[in-house]
Amino acid sequence: MGKVICAGLGPGDPELMSVRSWRAIQGARHVAYFRKAGRKGQARTLVDGLLPDTAVEHAMEYPVTTEIHFSDPEYNRLLSAFYDQWADTLTEISQDEDVVVLCEGDPFLYGSFMHLYTRLQGRAEVEVIPGITGMSGCWTASGQPITWGDDVLTVAMATLEEDELAARAQNTDALVVMKIGRNLPKLRRALERAGRAQDAWLVEHGTMAQQQVRKLSDVDGPVPYFSIVLIHGQGRRP
Amino acid sequence: MGKVICAGLGPGDPELMSVRSWRAIQGARHVAYFRKAGRKGQARTLVDGLLPDTAVEHAMEYPVTTEIHFSDPEYNRLLSAFYDQWADTLTEISQDEDVVVLCEGDPFLYGSFMHLYTRLQGRAEVEVIPGITGMSGCWTASGQPITWGDDVLTVAMATLEEDELAARAQNTDALVVMKIGRNLPKLRRALERAGRAQDAWLVEHGTMAQQQVRKLSDVDGPVPYFSIVLIHGQGRRP
Repeated sequence: MGKVICAGLGPGDPELMSVRSWRAIQGARHVAYFRKAGRKGQARTLVDGLLPDTAVEHAMEYPVTTEIHFSDPEYNRLLSAFYDQWADTLTEISQDEDVVVLCEGDPFLYGSFMHLYTRLQGRAEVEVIPGITGMSGCWTASGQPITWGDDVLTVAMATLEEDELAARAQNTDALVVMKIGRNLPKLRRALERAGRAQDAWLVEHGTMAQQQVRKLSDVDGPVPYFSIVLIHGQGRRP
Repeated sequence: MGKVICAGLGPGDPELMSVRSWRAIQGARHVAYFRKAGRKGQARTLVDGLLPDTAVEHAMEYPVTTEIHFSDPEYNRLLSAFYDQWADTLTEISQDEDVVVLCEGDPFLYGSFMHLYTRLQGRAEVEVIPGITGMSGCWTASGQPITWGDDVLTVAMATLEEDELAARAQNTDALVVMKIGRNLPKLRRALERAGRAQDAWLVEHGTMAQQQVRKLSDVDGPVPYFSIVLIHGQGRRP
């Protein structure tokens, strides 16, 4: 009788994964990971050189990523069937052996594994190993603490409406915005309306070799979906 | 020429620290850590069995913790002198050798190291190793994802005024409240006013042996300052 072990991988630098995730991956007999069809996948790339050659690999390829908008019922139907099917497969493997599911960042913070996690309840034993969040990798890369004293921190997605983003930016000390990509012009307008555009930083590939930290006002042109915008808190400091 | 290495320790379980922090501590020649006077200190306890016997230990004992309120100028004066003095000492050690500063959780998220970090700028080489946050340890312990889809996550301190806590609780999908302790009755009233008290969980010692996860409505009596209150987001899920 095995179990499903979800190993948080952290923000990108392999040495920033936890000792427990590192060991789980090093000893993996089966490993599963999400990826866009036709790609190697960021999670899989992260464990190059760590995963044993003997591990059986299960690539879980999203049936859709951004080709259909998430508000379309078809998007929901396709994703739901995909998660159902992989929950079945992982349940089956775990009858006999452990299977390690790789998850970038921290699995319970906006992670895809959650959709398998809910479907595995009562069917398989599941262990979740937390990870350093992608946002923590980014604020560490920025070289400035994100929150001090009693600062309020708001974490929001750039997929929200411009009005809501502006209100969130105005009504917080520190701000983290994820899922940037094509949402950048809207986010920039929202931050300008909130009077906070000059305090914002854009971090790409935080903690990885290609890491880039820029003031948002210096950014021109497209940015990756997985980049992060930060506004640092300025709270109490003796 | 050495450097000051701030090693994030993560939420409490030693195996949840990053591989990089683990290695830094295992190889430490000098180690420094905050503690309340007269205590061994949680950070130091966490590295028992990992820190070499030969490491020179520097216990940085807070001159004050809760004996004086943080709004009192005397509190500020004492803490400021304390951080100044330790910044001097760490600068001096790092002229010759590396010194590892232990930091629970993630150093740049409400960590005490930040007060040294700002004082070390331009004087010593500083490396910050992020960690899994205490709040991540708590939501992982709760067995439920904290955020889904486009959920907004708000992180706030229970030291805030009741009105502000109530407004924050009402105006977010997911909520994390830290620094609970004697602020619990106020926080409970705020969550009741926001209509969210029934959805709240209290987590103590997340990821440690003495971990305890309870519905807030089942909690009676005092709780530690470092416990965390959580309300999970209920966002989009295919």
